[in-house]
Amino acid sequence: MRTVWLNGDFVPETEAAVSIFDRGLNFGQSVYEVTPVIEGHYCNWPHHQARLDRSLATARIDDATDWPPILAELIARNGLKEGRIYLQVTAGATADRAFPLPEPGTTATRFAFTQADALIANPVAERGQRIVLRPDLRWQVRSAKTTQLLYAVLMKAEAKDVGVDDVWLVENGVVTEATSSNAHIIDARGVLVSHPVDFGVLPGVTRINVVAIARAMGLMVEERPFTPDELLSAREAFSSGAGTLVLPVVEVDGKPIGNGGPGAVTAEIRERYIALLRQG
Amino acid sequence: MRTVWLNGDFVPETEAAVSIFDRGLNFGQSVYEVTPVIEGHYCNWPHHQARLDRSLATARIDDATDWPPILAELIARNGLKEGRIYLQVTAGATADRAFPLPEPGTTATRFAFTQADALIANPVAERGQRIVLRPDLRWQVRSAKTTQLLYAVLMKAEAKDVGVDDVWLVENGVVTEATSSNAHIIDARGVLVSHPVDFGVLPGVTRINVVAIARAMGLMVEERPFTPDELLSAREAFSSGAGTLVLPVVEVDGKPIGNGGPGAVTAEIRERYIALLRQG
Repeated sequence: MRTVWLNGDFVPETEAAVSIFDRGLNFGQSVYEVTPVIEGHYCNWPHHQARLDRSLATARIDDATDWPPILAELIARNGLKEGRIYLQVTAGATADRAFPLPEPGTTATRFAFTQADALIANPVAERGQRIVLRPDLRWQVRSAKTTQLLYAVLMKAEAKDVGVDDVWLVENGVVTEATSSNAHIIDARGVLVSHPVDFGVLPGVTRINVVAIARAMGLMVEERPFTPDELLSAREAFSSGAGTLVLPVVEVDGKPIGNGGPGAVTAEIRERYIALLRQG
Repeated sequence: MRTVWLNGDFVPETEAAVSIFDRGLNFGQSVYEVTPVIEGHYCNWPHHQARLDRSLATARIDDATDWPPILAELIARNGLKEGRIYLQVTAGATADRAFPLPEPGTTATRFAFTQADALIANPVAERGQRIVLRPDLRWQVRSAKTTQLLYAVLMKAEAKDVGVDDVWLVENGVVTEATSSNAHIIDARGVLVSHPVDFGVLPGVTRINVVAIARAMGLMVEERPFTPDELLSAREAFSSGAGTLVLPVVEVDGKPIGNGGPGAVTAEIRERYIALLRQG
Protein backbone atom coordinates (compact mmCIF):
# COMPACT_ATOMS: atom_id res chain seq x y z
CA MET A 1 0.00 0.00 0.00
CA ARG A 2 1.43 3.34 -1.06
CA THR A 3 1.62 6.34 1.17
CA VAL A 4 0.36 9.42 -0.64
CA TRP A 5 0.33 13.08 0.37
CA LEU A 6 -2.88 15.10 0.64
CA ASN A 7 -3.22 18.66 1.92
CA GLY A 8 -0.36 18.40 4.39
CA ASP A 9 -0.71 14.81 5.53
CA PHE A 10 0.92 11.55 4.54
CA VAL A 11 -1.93 9.01 4.36
CA PRO A 12 -2.57 5.51 2.97
CA GLU A 13 -3.59 5.71 -0.69
CA THR A 14 -7.01 4.21 0.03
CA GLU A 15 -7.83 7.02 2.46
CA ALA A 16 -6.99 9.98 0.24
CA ALA A 17 -10.22 11.59 -0.90
CA VAL A 18 -11.50 15.03 -1.91
CA SER A 19 -14.93 16.63 -1.61
CA ILE A 20 -17.49 16.19 -4.37
CA PHE A 21 -17.53 20.02 -4.35
CA ASP A 22 -13.86 20.21 -5.32
CA ARG A 23 -13.40 22.56 -8.28
CA GLY A 24 -10.97 20.10 -9.83
CA LEU A 25 -13.77 17.55 -9.97
CA ASN A 26 -16.65 19.86 -10.99
CA PHE A 27 -14.85 22.22 -13.38
CA GLY A 28 -11.44 20.73 -14.18
CA GLN A 29 -9.91 23.80 -12.51
CA SER A 30 -6.76 21.94 -11.76
CA VAL A 31 -3.12 21.63 -12.84
CA TYR A 32 -0.47 18.96 -12.42
CA GLU A 33 3.14 17.98 -12.88
CA VAL A 34 4.88 14.64 -13.39
CA THR A 35 8.62 14.16 -12.94
CA PRO A 36 10.64 11.03 -13.62
CA VAL A 37 12.25 9.32 -10.64
CA ILE A 38 15.58 7.66 -11.35
CA GLU A 39 17.83 6.03 -8.75
CA GLY A 40 15.57 7.34 -6.00
CA HIS A 41 15.58 11.03 -6.90
CA TYR A 42 13.09 13.20 -8.75
CA CYS A 43 14.40 15.20 -11.71
CA ASN A 44 14.39 18.58 -13.43
CA TRP A 45 12.64 20.27 -10.51
CA PRO A 46 13.41 23.92 -11.39
CA HIS A 47 11.71 23.47 -14.78
CA HIS A 48 8.69 21.74 -13.23
CA GLN A 49 8.34 24.43 -10.56
CA ALA A 50 8.52 27.18 -13.18
CA ARG A 51 5.87 25.52 -15.34
CA LEU A 52 3.68 24.76 -12.32
CA ASP A 53 3.75 28.42 -11.35
CA ARG A 54 2.71 29.42 -14.88
CA SER A 55 -0.04 26.77 -14.98
CA LEU A 56 -1.40 27.94 -11.61
CA ALA A 57 -1.50 31.53 -12.85
CA THR A 58 -3.26 30.54 -16.09
CA ALA A 59 -5.83 28.42 -14.21
CA ARG A 60 -6.24 31.19 -11.60
CA ILE A 61 -5.36 28.94 -8.70
CA ASP A 62 -3.65 30.50 -5.71
CA ASP A 63 -1.11 28.16 -4.11
CA ALA A 64 2.50 28.26 -3.00
CA THR A 65 3.08 24.76 -1.60
CA ASP A 66 6.75 24.01 -0.97
CA TRP A 67 6.94 20.77 -2.96
CA PRO A 68 10.57 19.57 -2.74
CA PRO A 69 10.47 18.30 0.87
CA ILE A 70 7.10 16.61 0.20
CA LEU A 71 8.36 14.86 -2.94
CA ALA A 72 11.56 13.72 -1.21
CA GLU A 73 9.61 12.37 1.77
CA LEU A 74 7.12 10.56 -0.48
CA ILE A 75 9.94 8.87 -2.39
CA ALA A 76 11.61 7.86 0.89
CA ARG A 77 8.43 6.58 2.54
CA ASN A 78 7.57 4.48 -0.51
CA GLY A 79 11.14 3.32 -1.15
CA LEU A 80 10.77 4.38 -4.79
CA LYS A 81 13.83 3.79 -6.96
CA GLU A 82 12.47 4.26 -10.48
CA GLY A 83 9.19 5.56 -11.84
CA ARG A 84 7.36 8.85 -11.53
CA ILE A 85 6.09 11.30 -8.99
CA TYR A 86 2.79 13.04 -9.72
CA LEU A 87 1.38 16.14 -8.07
CA GLN A 88 -1.94 17.91 -8.65
CA VAL A 89 -3.30 21.24 -7.42
CA THR A 90 -6.98 22.18 -7.74
CA ALA A 91 -8.74 25.45 -6.94
CA GLY A 92 -10.08 23.73 -3.82
CA ALA A 93 -13.44 22.73 -2.46
CA THR A 94 -16.07 25.37 -1.78
CA ALA A 95 -19.34 25.16 0.13
CA ASP A 96 -21.28 24.73 -3.10
CA ARG A 97 -20.72 24.40 -6.85
CA ALA A 98 -20.62 27.75 -8.65
CA PHE A 99 -18.65 28.94 -11.70
CA PRO A 100 -17.24 32.17 -10.21
CA LEU A 101 -13.78 31.90 -8.69
CA PRO A 102 -13.80 31.06 -4.99
CA GLU A 103 -13.13 33.79 -2.45
CA PRO A 104 -9.46 34.77 -2.13
CA GLY A 105 -7.94 32.70 0.62
CA THR A 106 -9.78 29.50 -0.35
CA THR A 107 -7.28 26.72 0.22
CA ALA A 108 -6.21 24.81 -2.86
CA THR A 109 -6.53 21.02 -2.82
CA ARG A 110 -3.05 19.49 -3.21
CA PHE A 111 -2.00 15.90 -3.50
CA ALA A 112 0.94 13.84 -4.73
CA PHE A 113 1.76 10.19 -5.20
CA THR A 114 4.55 7.95 -6.48
CA GLN A 115 4.32 5.41 -9.31
CA ALA A 116 6.88 2.60 -9.57
CA ASP A 117 7.72 1.88 -13.21
CA ALA A 118 10.63 0.80 -15.40
CA LEU A 119 11.49 3.98 -17.30
CA ILE A 120 14.92 2.91 -18.54
CA ALA A 121 14.29 -0.75 -19.42
CA ASN A 122 11.25 0.06 -21.57
CA PRO A 123 10.57 -2.46 -24.39
CA VAL A 124 8.87 0.29 -26.44
CA ALA A 125 12.23 2.07 -26.63
CA GLU A 126 13.59 -1.06 -28.35
CA ARG A 127 10.75 -1.79 -30.75
CA GLY A 128 9.41 1.74 -31.30
CA GLN A 129 5.89 3.13 -31.32
CA ARG A 130 3.33 2.66 -34.05
CA ILE A 131 1.06 5.71 -34.24
CA VAL A 132 -1.84 7.16 -36.21
CA LEU A 133 -2.71 10.80 -36.92
CA ARG A 134 -5.98 12.30 -35.73
CA PRO A 135 -7.42 15.86 -35.57
CA ASP A 136 -6.38 17.95 -32.56
CA LEU A 137 -9.70 19.04 -31.01
CA ARG A 138 -8.31 20.06 -27.60
CA TRP A 139 -8.83 23.46 -26.06
CA GLN A 140 -6.40 26.14 -27.21
CA VAL A 141 -4.68 26.94 -23.90
CA ARG A 142 -2.19 24.09 -24.07
CA SER A 143 0.72 26.01 -22.60
CA ALA A 144 -0.70 25.24 -19.15
CA LYS A 145 -0.52 21.67 -17.83
CA THR A 146 -4.14 21.33 -16.76
CA THR A 147 -6.45 18.36 -16.25
CA GLN A 148 -8.45 19.28 -19.38
CA LEU A 149 -7.41 15.80 -20.55
CA LEU A 150 -10.56 14.11 -21.77
CA TYR A 151 -9.54 14.44 -25.43
CA ALA A 152 -6.18 12.86 -24.61
CA VAL A 153 -8.01 9.99 -22.89
CA LEU A 154 -10.29 9.55 -25.92
CA MET A 155 -7.31 9.51 -28.30
CA LYS A 156 -5.43 6.97 -26.14
CA ALA A 157 -8.57 4.83 -26.39
CA GLU A 158 -8.69 5.43 -30.16
CA ALA A 159 -5.09 4.22 -30.44
CA LYS A 160 -5.98 1.04 -28.59
CA ASP A 161 -9.13 0.58 -30.71
CA VAL A 162 -7.13 0.68 -33.95
CA GLY A 163 -4.27 -1.40 -32.56
CA VAL A 164 -1.43 1.13 -32.31
CA ASP A 165 0.58 2.65 -29.45
CA ASP A 166 -0.43 6.29 -29.62
CA VAL A 167 -2.02 9.13 -31.59
CA TRP A 168 -0.26 12.23 -32.85
CA LEU A 169 -2.52 15.25 -33.26
CA VAL A 170 -2.88 17.45 -36.35
CA GLU A 171 -4.31 20.96 -36.46
CA ASN A 172 -4.29 23.45 -39.34
CA GLY A 173 -2.14 21.10 -41.39
CA VAL A 174 0.66 20.62 -38.86
CA VAL A 175 1.45 18.12 -36.12
CA THR A 176 0.99 19.69 -32.68
CA GLU A 177 1.69 16.97 -30.09
CA ALA A 178 1.28 13.34 -29.16
CA THR A 179 -1.64 12.64 -26.78
CA SER A 180 0.52 13.13 -23.68
CA SER A 181 4.00 14.01 -24.91
CA ASN A 182 5.79 16.30 -27.36
CA ALA A 183 6.38 15.20 -30.98
CA HIS A 184 9.64 15.61 -32.91
CA ILE A 185 11.25 14.53 -36.17
CA ILE A 186 14.74 14.25 -37.56
CA ASP A 187 13.87 15.46 -41.03
CA ALA A 188 15.23 14.40 -44.44
CA ARG A 189 18.15 16.85 -43.97
CA GLY A 190 19.00 15.50 -40.51
CA VAL A 191 17.58 18.52 -38.70
CA LEU A 192 15.62 18.10 -35.45
CA VAL A 193 12.25 19.80 -36.05
CA SER A 194 9.98 20.45 -33.09
CA HIS A 195 6.80 22.50 -32.75
CA PRO A 196 7.56 25.77 -30.93
CA VAL A 197 6.20 25.99 -27.40
CA ASP A 198 3.45 28.53 -27.72
CA PHE A 199 -0.22 28.12 -26.74
CA GLY A 200 -0.44 25.26 -29.25
CA VAL A 201 1.66 22.74 -27.34
CA LEU A 202 2.80 22.01 -23.82
CA PRO A 203 6.28 23.35 -22.99
CA GLY A 204 7.61 19.92 -22.10
CA VAL A 205 10.42 19.66 -19.57
CA THR A 206 11.77 16.59 -21.36
CA ARG A 207 11.55 18.61 -24.60
CA ILE A 208 13.84 21.28 -23.10
CA ASN A 209 16.41 18.58 -22.38
CA VAL A 210 15.99 16.95 -25.79
CA VAL A 211 16.64 20.20 -27.63
CA ALA A 212 19.72 20.93 -25.51
CA ILE A 213 21.09 17.42 -26.01
CA ALA A 214 20.51 17.58 -29.77
CA ARG A 215 22.43 20.85 -29.96
CA ALA A 216 25.25 19.34 -27.87
CA MET A 217 25.35 16.47 -30.37
CA GLY A 218 25.90 19.00 -33.16
CA LEU A 219 22.42 18.69 -34.66
CA MET A 220 20.66 21.65 -36.18
CA VAL A 221 17.38 22.38 -34.36
CA GLU A 222 14.42 24.15 -35.93
CA GLU A 223 11.59 25.06 -33.56
CA ARG A 224 8.76 25.24 -36.06
CA PRO A 225 5.69 23.12 -36.82
CA PHE A 226 6.07 20.21 -39.25
CA THR A 227 3.46 18.74 -41.57
CA PRO A 228 2.24 15.13 -41.77
CA ASP A 229 4.10 14.89 -45.11
CA GLU A 230 7.36 15.97 -43.47
CA LEU A 231 6.73 13.40 -40.75
CA LEU A 232 6.22 10.64 -43.31
CA SER A 233 9.43 11.55 -45.15
CA ALA A 234 11.47 12.05 -41.95
CA ARG A 235 14.55 9.94 -41.18
CA GLU A 236 13.37 9.48 -37.60
CA ALA A 237 10.49 10.50 -35.36
CA PHE A 238 10.14 10.37 -31.59
CA SER A 239 8.09 11.57 -28.64
CA SER A 240 9.37 13.06 -25.40
CA GLY A 241 7.63 13.10 -22.03
CA ALA A 242 8.30 12.84 -18.31
CA GLY A 243 6.66 9.45 -18.03
CA THR A 244 8.30 7.85 -21.05
CA LEU A 245 11.50 9.92 -21.54
CA VAL A 246 12.29 9.58 -25.28
CA LEU A 247 10.51 6.96 -27.41
CA PRO A 248 11.08 6.30 -31.12
CA VAL A 249 8.21 6.21 -33.61
CA VAL A 250 8.63 3.60 -36.35
CA GLU A 251 5.30 3.71 -38.14
CA VAL A 252 2.71 6.41 -38.92
CA ASP A 253 -0.70 5.50 -40.37
CA GLY A 254 0.71 2.13 -41.39
CA LYS A 255 3.72 3.60 -43.23
CA PRO A 256 7.30 3.08 -41.98
CA ILE A 257 9.43 6.02 -40.79
CA GLY A 258 12.99 5.81 -42.13
CA ASN A 259 13.99 2.17 -42.34
CA GLY A 260 11.03 1.15 -40.17
CA GLY A 261 13.12 0.62 -37.03
CA PRO A 262 14.02 2.89 -34.11
CA GLY A 263 16.35 5.68 -35.24
CA ALA A 264 20.00 5.92 -34.23
CA VAL A 265 19.84 9.63 -33.42
CA THR A 266 16.74 9.07 -31.29
CA ALA A 267 18.51 6.26 -29.44
CA GLU A 268 21.49 8.48 -28.72
CA ILE A 269 19.29 11.33 -27.45
CA ARG A 270 17.52 8.85 -25.19
CA GLU A 271 20.82 7.45 -23.87
CA ARG A 272 22.24 10.90 -23.20
CA TYR A 273 19.05 11.99 -21.46
CA ILE A 274 19.08 8.93 -19.20
CA ALA A 275 22.73 9.65 -18.32
CA LEU A 276 21.73 13.21 -17.44
CA LEU A 277 18.86 12.00 -15.24
CA ARG A 278 21.15 9.57 -13.43
CA GLN A 279 23.42 12.47 -12.50
CA GLY A 280 20.44 14.11 -10.80
CA MET B 1 -26.67 20.67 6.18
CA ARG B 2 -27.68 19.18 2.84
CA THR B 3 -28.02 15.49 2.23
CA VAL B 4 -26.29 14.53 -1.00
CA TRP B 5 -26.18 11.23 -2.88
CA LEU B 6 -22.92 9.40 -3.63
CA ASN B 7 -22.57 5.96 -5.21
CA GLY B 8 -25.78 4.59 -3.76
CA ASP B 9 -25.85 6.31 -0.39
CA PHE B 10 -27.52 9.41 0.98
CA VAL B 11 -24.86 11.13 3.10
CA PRO B 12 -24.23 14.53 4.73
CA GLU B 13 -22.64 16.91 2.21
CA THR B 14 -19.47 17.23 4.31
CA GLU B 15 -18.86 13.49 4.14
CA ALA B 16 -19.16 13.02 0.37
CA ALA B 17 -15.68 12.49 -1.05
CA VAL B 18 -14.04 10.70 -3.96
CA SER B 19 -10.61 9.14 -4.35
CA ILE B 20 -7.67 11.22 -5.53
CA PHE B 21 -7.39 8.52 -8.23
CA ASP B 22 -10.83 9.31 -9.60
CA ARG B 23 -10.65 9.78 -13.38
CA GLY B 24 -12.96 12.77 -13.10
CA LEU B 25 -10.36 14.49 -10.94
CA ASN B 26 -7.19 13.37 -12.82
CA PHE B 27 -8.45 13.54 -16.42
CA GLY B 28 -11.77 15.37 -16.47
CA GLN B 29 -13.34 12.13 -17.74
CA SER B 30 -16.69 13.12 -16.39
CA VAL B 31 -20.12 14.33 -17.50
CA TYR B 32 -22.97 16.09 -15.74
CA GLU B 33 -26.53 17.36 -15.93
CA VAL B 34 -28.38 20.19 -14.19
CA THR B 35 -32.16 20.45 -14.11
CA PRO B 36 -34.23 23.26 -12.69
CA VAL B 37 -36.41 22.45 -9.68
CA ILE B 38 -39.69 24.35 -9.52
CA GLU B 39 -42.43 23.81 -6.95
CA GLY B 40 -40.56 20.80 -5.62
CA HIS B 41 -40.17 18.83 -8.85
CA TYR B 42 -37.28 18.46 -11.27
CA CYS B 43 -37.99 19.23 -14.92
CA ASN B 44 -37.46 18.06 -18.50
CA TRP B 45 -36.10 14.71 -17.42
CA PRO B 46 -36.47 12.81 -20.72
CA HIS B 47 -34.31 15.43 -22.46
CA HIS B 48 -31.67 15.33 -19.69
CA GLN B 49 -31.59 11.54 -19.71
CA ALA B 50 -31.16 11.45 -23.49
CA ARG B 51 -28.32 13.98 -23.38
CA LEU B 52 -26.69 12.24 -20.42
CA ASP B 53 -26.68 8.98 -22.36
CA ARG B 54 -25.04 10.70 -25.34
CA SER B 55 -22.47 12.45 -23.10
CA LEU B 56 -21.59 9.15 -21.39
CA ALA B 57 -21.06 7.50 -24.77
CA THR B 58 -18.87 10.37 -26.02
CA ALA B 59 -16.78 10.35 -22.82
CA ARG B 60 -16.62 6.53 -22.93
CA ILE B 61 -18.10 6.11 -19.46
CA ASP B 62 -20.16 3.02 -18.78
CA ASP B 63 -23.06 3.71 -16.42
CA ALA B 64 -26.80 3.10 -16.30
CA THR B 65 -27.80 4.61 -12.95
CA ASP B 66 -31.57 4.93 -12.57
CA TRP B 67 -31.66 8.63 -11.67
CA PRO B 68 -35.36 9.56 -11.23
CA PRO B 69 -35.90 7.88 -7.83
CA ILE B 70 -32.58 9.32 -6.58
CA LEU B 71 -33.45 12.85 -7.70
CA ALA B 72 -36.94 12.65 -6.20
CA GLU B 73 -35.58 11.36 -2.88
CA LEU B 74 -32.89 14.06 -2.75
CA ILE B 75 -35.47 16.79 -3.32
CA ALA B 76 -37.70 15.30 -0.61
CA ARG B 77 -34.92 14.82 1.95
CA ASN B 78 -33.73 18.40 1.46
CA GLY B 79 -37.22 19.89 1.27
CA LEU B 80 -36.22 21.69 -1.93
CA LYS B 81 -38.91 23.86 -3.48
CA GLU B 82 -36.98 25.93 -6.03
CA GLY B 83 -33.46 25.74 -7.36
CA ARG B 84 -31.48 23.09 -9.20
CA ILE B 85 -30.48 19.50 -8.99
CA TYR B 86 -27.00 18.57 -10.20
CA LEU B 87 -25.67 15.13 -11.03
CA GLN B 88 -22.20 14.08 -12.16
CA VAL B 89 -20.84 10.77 -13.45
CA THR B 90 -17.10 10.09 -13.77
CA ALA B 91 -15.27 7.11 -15.24
CA GLY B 92 -14.54 6.02 -11.67
CA ALA B 93 -11.54 5.55 -9.47
CA THR B 94 -8.88 3.03 -10.46
CA ALA B 95 -5.96 1.62 -8.49
CA ASP B 96 -3.57 4.08 -10.11
CA ARG B 97 -3.54 6.99 -12.54
CA ALA B 98 -3.14 5.94 -16.18
CA PHE B 99 -4.52 7.38 -19.44
CA PRO B 100 -5.92 4.14 -20.91
CA LEU B 101 -9.60 3.48 -20.23
CA PRO B 102 -10.24 1.45 -17.08
CA GLU B 103 -11.12 -2.23 -17.36
CA PRO B 104 -14.72 -2.89 -18.43
CA GLY B 105 -16.79 -3.28 -15.28
CA THR B 106 -15.02 -0.48 -13.40
CA THR B 107 -17.75 1.24 -11.43
CA ALA B 108 -18.46 4.84 -12.38
CA THR B 109 -18.40 7.45 -9.62
CA ARG B 110 -21.84 9.02 -9.36
CA PHE B 111 -23.10 11.84 -7.18
CA ALA B 112 -25.92 14.34 -7.03
CA PHE B 113 -26.89 17.31 -4.90
CA THR B 114 -29.57 19.98 -4.62
CA GLN B 115 -29.06 23.74 -4.74
CA ALA B 116 -31.74 26.05 -3.34
CA ASP B 117 -32.03 29.21 -5.45
CA ALA B 118 -34.63 31.72 -6.65
CA LEU B 119 -34.95 30.89 -10.35
CA ILE B 120 -38.20 32.76 -10.98
CA ALA B 121 -37.69 35.91 -8.90
CA ASN B 122 -34.30 36.66 -10.46
CA PRO B 123 -33.33 40.37 -10.51
CA VAL B 124 -31.16 39.78 -13.60
CA ALA B 125 -34.32 38.88 -15.53
CA GLU B 126 -35.61 42.40 -14.70
CA ARG B 127 -32.47 44.44 -15.39
CA GLY B 128 -30.85 42.25 -18.07
CA GLN B 129 -27.27 41.05 -18.50
CA ARG B 130 -24.35 43.15 -19.69
CA ILE B 131 -21.90 40.98 -21.60
CA VAL B 132 -18.63 41.16 -23.52
CA LEU B 133 -17.41 39.06 -26.45
CA ARG B 134 -14.28 36.92 -26.17
CA PRO B 135 -12.65 34.22 -28.35
CA ASP B 136 -14.00 30.69 -27.92
CA LEU B 137 -10.92 28.60 -27.11
CA ARG B 138 -12.76 25.57 -25.71
CA TRP B 139 -12.28 22.04 -26.98
CA GLN B 140 -14.32 21.14 -30.05
CA VAL B 141 -16.48 18.34 -28.61
CA ARG B 142 -19.09 20.63 -27.10
CA SER B 143 -22.07 18.44 -27.90
CA ALA B 144 -21.28 16.43 -24.76
CA LYS B 145 -21.91 18.02 -21.36
CA THR B 146 -18.51 17.26 -19.81
CA THR B 147 -16.52 18.83 -16.99
CA GLN B 148 -13.99 20.26 -19.49
CA LEU B 149 -15.05 23.60 -17.99
CA LEU B 150 -11.88 25.46 -17.13
CA TYR B 151 -12.28 27.88 -20.04
CA ALA B 152 -15.84 28.64 -18.89
CA VAL B 153 -14.49 29.32 -15.38
CA LEU B 154 -11.80 31.61 -16.80
CA MET B 155 -14.35 33.52 -18.87
CA LYS B 156 -16.71 33.92 -15.88
CA ALA B 157 -13.72 35.37 -14.04
CA GLU B 158 -12.95 37.62 -17.03
CA ALA B 159 -16.54 38.91 -16.95
CA LYS B 160 -16.17 39.78 -13.27
CA ASP B 161 -12.76 41.39 -13.91
CA VAL B 162 -14.20 43.75 -16.53
CA GLY B 163 -17.38 44.41 -14.54
CA VAL B 164 -20.05 42.66 -16.62
CA ASP B 165 -22.37 39.70 -16.06
CA ASP B 166 -21.11 37.20 -18.59
CA VAL B 167 -19.05 36.48 -21.70
CA TRP B 168 -20.38 35.31 -25.05
CA LEU B 169 -17.89 33.33 -27.10
CA VAL B 170 -16.90 33.95 -30.72
CA GLU B 171 -15.24 31.47 -33.07
CA ASN B 172 -14.64 31.75 -36.82
CA GLY B 173 -16.59 35.00 -36.91
CA VAL B 174 -19.78 33.74 -35.26
CA VAL B 175 -21.17 33.61 -31.73
CA THR B 176 -21.15 30.04 -30.41
CA GLU B 177 -22.43 30.16 -26.82
CA ALA B 178 -22.41 32.02 -23.55
CA THR B 179 -19.96 30.66 -20.95
CA SER B 180 -22.54 28.24 -19.50
CA SER B 181 -25.72 28.74 -21.51
CA ASN B 182 -26.95 28.98 -25.11
CA ALA B 183 -27.02 32.33 -26.90
CA HIS B 184 -29.89 33.64 -29.03
CA ILE B 185 -31.03 36.82 -30.77
CA ILE B 186 -34.27 38.23 -32.07
CA ASP B 187 -32.78 39.78 -35.18
CA ALA B 188 -33.65 43.01 -36.97
CA ARG B 189 -36.43 41.15 -38.85
CA GLY B 190 -37.92 39.72 -35.65
CA VAL B 191 -36.60 36.21 -36.32
CA LEU B 192 -35.21 34.08 -33.49
CA VAL B 193 -31.71 33.09 -34.58
CA SER B 194 -29.88 30.39 -32.64
CA HIS B 195 -26.67 28.49 -33.36
CA PRO B 196 -27.50 24.96 -34.55
CA VAL B 197 -26.70 22.20 -32.08
CA ASP B 198 -23.76 20.47 -33.66
CA PHE B 199 -20.34 19.82 -32.12
CA GLY B 200 -19.91 23.60 -31.78
CA VAL B 201 -22.45 24.16 -29.01
CA LEU B 202 -24.19 22.27 -26.24
CA PRO B 203 -27.66 20.97 -27.17
CA GLY B 204 -29.34 22.82 -24.34
CA VAL B 205 -32.53 21.40 -22.85
CA THR B 206 -33.76 24.92 -22.12
CA ARG B 207 -32.89 25.77 -25.72
CA ILE B 208 -35.21 22.98 -26.97
CA ASN B 209 -38.03 24.55 -24.96
CA VAL B 210 -37.18 28.08 -26.09
CA VAL B 211 -37.32 27.13 -29.76
CA ALA B 212 -40.65 25.31 -29.30
CA ILE B 213 -42.14 28.25 -27.38
CA ALA B 214 -40.96 30.74 -29.99
CA ARG B 215 -42.61 28.70 -32.74
CA ALA B 216 -45.82 28.47 -30.67
CA MET B 217 -45.72 32.28 -30.37
CA GLY B 218 -45.64 32.50 -34.17
CA LEU B 219 -41.99 33.56 -34.43
CA MET B 220 -39.82 32.43 -37.29
CA VAL B 221 -36.84 30.42 -36.04
CA GLU B 222 -33.57 30.10 -37.91
CA GLU B 223 -31.10 27.60 -36.49
CA ARG B 224 -27.89 29.04 -37.87
CA PRO B 225 -24.88 30.87 -36.42
CA PHE B 226 -25.07 34.67 -36.08
CA THR B 227 -22.23 37.16 -36.23
CA PRO B 228 -21.23 39.75 -33.62
CA ASP B 229 -22.56 42.42 -36.05
CA GLU B 230 -25.95 40.71 -36.19
CA LEU B 231 -25.93 40.56 -32.40
CA LEU B 232 -25.19 44.26 -32.12
CA SER B 233 -28.01 45.14 -34.53
CA ALA B 234 -30.50 42.67 -33.03
CA ARG B 235 -33.79 43.81 -31.48
CA GLU B 236 -33.23 41.51 -28.51
CA ALA B 237 -30.69 39.02 -27.23
CA PHE B 238 -30.93 36.42 -24.49
CA SER B 239 -29.32 33.36 -23.00
CA SER B 240 -30.99 30.09 -22.01
CA GLY B 241 -29.80 27.56 -19.46
CA ALA B 242 -31.08 25.16 -16.82
CA GLY B 243 -29.71 27.23 -13.96
CA THR B 244 -30.98 30.61 -15.15
CA LEU B 245 -33.90 29.71 -17.47
CA VAL B 246 -34.11 32.64 -19.92
CA LEU B 247 -32.19 35.87 -19.25
CA PRO B 248 -32.20 39.01 -21.43
CA VAL B 249 -28.99 40.65 -22.64
CA VAL B 250 -29.16 44.44 -22.74
CA GLU B 251 -25.57 45.42 -23.54
CA VAL B 252 -22.72 43.90 -25.56
CA ASP B 253 -19.19 45.32 -25.38
CA GLY B 254 -20.63 48.54 -23.93
CA LYS B 255 -23.23 49.01 -26.71
CA PRO B 256 -26.98 48.71 -26.03
CA ILE B 257 -29.06 45.95 -27.63
CA GLY B 258 -32.38 47.26 -28.97
CA ASN B 259 -33.57 50.06 -26.68
CA GLY B 260 -31.07 49.02 -24.02
CA GLY B 261 -33.67 47.33 -21.81
CA PRO B 262 -34.86 43.70 -21.55
CA GLY B 263 -36.79 42.70 -24.67
CA ALA B 264 -40.53 42.08 -24.72
CA VAL B 265 -40.24 38.87 -26.76
CA THR B 266 -37.57 37.54 -24.41
CA ALA B 267 -39.81 38.34 -21.42
CA GLU B 268 -42.71 36.46 -22.98
CA ILE B 269 -40.54 33.41 -23.77
CA ARG B 270 -39.32 33.45 -20.18
CA GLU B 271 -42.87 33.71 -18.80
CA ARG B 272 -44.16 30.92 -21.00
CA TYR B 273 -41.21 28.71 -20.07
CA ILE B 274 -41.80 29.26 -16.36
CA ALA B 275 -45.47 28.38 -16.84
CA LEU B 276 -44.40 25.17 -18.59
CA LEU B 277 -42.00 24.27 -15.78
CA ARG B 278 -44.71 24.86 -13.16
CA GLN B 279 -46.91 22.30 -14.93
CA GLY B 280 -44.11 19.76 -14.47
